[in-house]
Amino acid sequence: MWDRLRRDFDVGYIDEDIVDVLELIFRREHSFTISSCSGRITILDGPMPWDRKESTIVFKKHSPVSLDEVVNVLKQPVLYCLWLIVSGPIIHVVSDSLGEALEILRIAREAGMKHSGILSISDRGVISELRTGIRLSILLKIRNDVVIDLSRLKSVIDVANNALLEGKERLRRLREALIRTGRQ
Amino acid sequence: MWDRLRRDFDVGYIDEDIVDVLELIFRREHSFTISSCSGRITILDGPMPWDRKESTIVFKKHSPVSLDEVVNVLKQPVLYCLWLIVSGPIIHVVSDSLGEALEILRIAREAGMKHSGILSISDRGVISELRTGIRLSILLKIRNDVVIDLSRLKSVIDVANNALLEGKERLRRLREALIRTGRQ
Repeated sequence: MWDRLRRDFDVGYIDEDIVDVLELIFRREHSFTISSCSGRITILDGPMPWDRKESTIVFKKHSPVSLDEVVNVLKQPVLYCLWLIVSGPIIHVVSDSLGEALEILRIAREAGMKHSGILSISDRGVISELRTGIRLSILLKIRNDVVIDLSRLKSVIDVANNALLEGKERLRRLREALIRTGRQ
Repeated sequence: MWDRLRRDFDVGYIDEDIVDVLELIFRREHSFTISSCSGRITILDGPMPWDRKESTIVFKKHSPVSLDEVVNVLKQPVLYCLWLIVSGPIIHVVSDSLGEALEILRIAREAGMKHSGILSISDRGVISELRTGIRLSILLKIRNDVVIDLSRLKSVIDVANNALLEGKERLRRLREALIRTGRQ
């Protein structure tokens, strides 16, 4: 699984912000990661942000966005609604025992990833999701009508970028908590 | 716990939309609920929606909101940002075994509550959170600047109300799944 992760990283599937955190989890004897995101800003066209079937991602970035980038996306025609989504970091971990999964959850919660929990338990292991409560879904357009006052768009983007950075900060805390726990 | 729930319901702590679903969970031999929300629209004043310490809820309703209600809230002065939050149903369940918790999670996922998971495992039982991915956080004001184009506010509220109703629909599906499973 580690070789696979390195390969994915080398071809650019994994963002740099998170690879060392994944490595720290892999170094634990009884856990490894299966998917992850360091936090990102996406703009998607869809009826609702959670409606994956009908939605199309039109923009995606793992670092702060600029006014120009959003203005460019706003110019394009929209089928449903245009949502600017900020999501915090998220990591899926497989552990070989319940005890190890609960320990990983404890570390994650301590680092501010308070929406973490166990998703499934089977012969193949315990799958946990490490997640923060950081999430924004800002409505930009309904069909082709911009709903944000354009003179305020810069401030709205500042709020979105701050939310993204708050997510990266939780990732930094998780990294430190994992190093601290690994040393014990 | 059931007597406590009835008391809470009688004094108005529990919304009507969800009390029969809670009853269906209580009827299972090995589970009961400890907290719940049928889905709601809140407007809060805070730096970010997840920042509970600094935030104040200025409006809360478990059914669709009207343009007038939102316009009234918009008139009030704001300390940080004004967020219109739509959240789907959420139920916390305690089960007396892992097997029962996994069965409840299976039922919840089948009913479209796909973000459900186990939060903790201890001598006092297994605590699960049943949750959908339904959540909107629409930015209305930054300090005292309205960021939504007021001529589009009605359409924005329609989208928020539709999201709320989508949550209530998942609750209906959970109710049916619980009845179906209870009969087996």
